Amino acid sequence: MSFIKLTDLTSKEIVPGYHGRFLHTEHNTISHWKVEAGATLPEHAHEHEQTSIVLEGKFELTVDGEARLLEPGEWALIPSNVPHSGKAHTACTIMDIFYPVREDYR
Amino acid sequence: MSFIKLTDLTSKEIVPGYHGRFLHTEHNTISHWKVEAGATLPEHAHEHEQTSIVLEGKFELTVDGEARLLEPGEWALIPSNVPHSGKAHTACTIMDIFYPVREDYR
Repeated sequence: MSFIKLTDLTSKEIVPGYHGRFLHTEHNTISHWKVEAGATLPEHAHEHEQTSIVLEGKFELTVDGEARLLEPGEWALIPSNVPHSGKAHTACTIMDIFYPVREDYR
Repeated sequence: MSFIKLTDLTSKEIVPGYHGRFLHTEHNTISHWKVEAGATLPEHAHEHEQTSIVLEGKFELTVDGEARLLEPGEWALIPSNVPHSGKAHTACTIMDIFYPVREDYR
């Protein structure tokens, strides 16, 4: 299990339009999302610290009431229990790193 | 500090040919590497769990004696204290996720 092909991880549609593949390490969950253009992520919060990295597309992310249109090369840091929401302005590829493991994504 | 531009993070050449930018969260260090073609990473090990994600290029990674030529869409999981080494067969862009924080990269 040292080497993993992304396409060998099962894709799950966690929220409509948000198709994620998940690698669970001992301490982190690393998710790779393909997001449909226009898909919205309702405001929510979780205990897990989250870093979001836009690899492709334009994604509007709101963290604790502050909105930003993120493009490739832009990252967001969402501390534990901070509310956040989002909207894909185009089709997007996004990575999220969670600590601790997202047991709900297994 | 919710939103970060990758280019606002200082680039450091940690090993010859390995130019990294580092985001330190409360629990993780997320690194974004630009690696020069041909650059070699000597075998080493550290307490930090590491996940490596090749975004661009071809990178040969050896984990605990097992070598693999990784391309985009291929990830590697390196548990705590497992020896690993590498070589960039082309110029590469790679992300590493470390737990816990790499204090030595601050």
